Amino acid sequence: MKTARFISKGRQHNGVLKDGLLYDAAGETHRPEDVQFLLPLKPGKVIALALNYADHVAELGFKAPEEPVMFLKPNTSLLPHGGTVIYPRGAKFMHYEVELGIVIGRDARRVKAKDAEDYVGGYTIANDLVVRDYVSNYYRPPMRAKGWDTFGPLGPYLVSADEVPDPYNLGLRAYVNGELRQEGNTRDMILKAPELIEFMSRFMTLEAGDVILTGTPKGVSHVGPGDVMRLEIDGLEALENDIQWEDESAEPLIADEGART
Amino acid sequence: MKTARFISKGRQHNGVLKDGLLYDAAGETHRPEDVQFLLPLKPGKVIALALNYADHVAELGFKAPEEPVMFLKPNTSLLPHGGTVIYPRGAKFMHYEVELGIVIGRDARRVKAKDAEDYVGGYTIANDLVVRDYVSNYYRPPMRAKGWDTFGPLGPYLVSADEVPDPYNLGLRAYVNGELRQEGNTRDMILKAPELIEFMSRFMTLEAGDVILTGTPKGVSHVGPGDVMRLEIDGLEALENDIQWEDESAEPLIADEGART
Repeated sequence: MKTARFISKGRQHNGVLKDGLLYDAAGETHRPEDVQFLLPLKPGKVIALALNYADHVAELGFKAPEEPVMFLKPNTSLLPHGGTVIYPRGAKFMHYEVELGIVIGRDARRVKAKDAEDYVGGYTIANDLVVRDYVSNYYRPPMRAKGWDTFGPLGPYLVSADEVPDPYNLGLRAYVNGELRQEGNTRDMILKAPELIEFMSRFMTLEAGDVILTGTPKGVSHVGPGDVMRLEIDGLEALENDIQWEDESAEPLIADEGART
Repeated sequence: MKTARFISKGRQHNGVLKDGLLYDAAGETHRPEDVQFLLPLKPGKVIALALNYADHVAELGFKAPEEPVMFLKPNTSLLPHGGTVIYPRGAKFMHYEVELGIVIGRDARRVKAKDAEDYVGGYTIANDLVVRDYVSNYYRPPMRAKGWDTFGPLGPYLVSADEVPDPYNLGLRAYVNGELRQEGNTRDMILKAPELIEFMSRFMTLEAGDVILTGTPKGVSHVGPGDVMRLEIDGLEALENDIQWEDESAEPLIADEGART
């Protein structure tokens, strides 16, 4: 089942996607292209991974980490499908990152890898946006590189686990203004849900609705104001967001001579 | 006003502390030592600071950072006053950290330092517990060092801002089993609410109920199973938590020859 939260004709709905149409609770249909999407769920926390695709790690010239390189994205960074990403004044290099989002289905604590599948509720698409200028250490991405409001597009749908029988053989693609820029497959993920859920739940509770962003394959590139990002994952539809300049009154967080103007 | 959420005689209450007694909504009184405290509020996010006291930075031999060294604590790490902290199997060095918690009173985005005070709703006491074994880089404390369930004692009260006229002249003290181990004053904080709120709200929304843990002064030391930590901040009462071994069936997250046994 693919579920979405959306606003249509001035009313908020929880809907289900069937044959290309959104069915609301009353059975009325809405065309996805006509509605305003909200986040498909409200996570308690969003745990993101750096360096979790073999090809991306190689691209950066690093070796694969022995344990998950984790950081939290603030919930305030989340943005629905169709929402506009803010391009900060003073930034030089912004990168999109297409990622499979694993949505926790029930509370997990000290769950073993072999049982982890029972705790996966579903999947969604995430764009783990980053201003590279602010990354001083790839192993600990700082909050101001990845924590901006709007730097966490998520959706459009929460796709239930039963609809994704083989989550580690999914193509991921990122298009910028229609041009294919990033392409990978979840089979190249280094640590997958079983290992991730075992490691994380060893020390903290993963709560129903928490989301794990599982890292990005190789092929990140620069994007800027005016660009439209379209992120696809097989079977999960497409997450689309445009980028616009932050308003002119904003002072650069860090003034930089090489910044876009 | 000092408010708390607590359970007394099988009922949950929101109460106010007056003359040493907790008054519930019906006007009944409860003795604080007889009730089970819950978290005084449920934060949307908890932003913690490393290296924000001049004396602690000096103690570590570092120089003061030019911008806030921020990380998020997962909400699942929070623990009420009176709750038991888990000492992980395999850990060698656990440290308490007494910290002033700033509670955001209303949503803040791009707030200037001169206006920041209007966005402070109140204060509380926080214990930013850490297993030092897992800290590889002081500038980016990793999640498994500080993100364990129970590693975020908070409370007992939310103290409204009007009750704390001079938040940067408060004594902080940490006692372990009655012995004074850590002592400092909020005047030694490097970045205070005005600068912190300006910096953070420059890129992300600080929501009402979010908590900023403002860092710890010098004097951290080892604690272990069986110890009782009592953290005091002038005017905010005391946050007390004991530490107990994780159950015997738990496998060490990282096996280490020097671990307590």
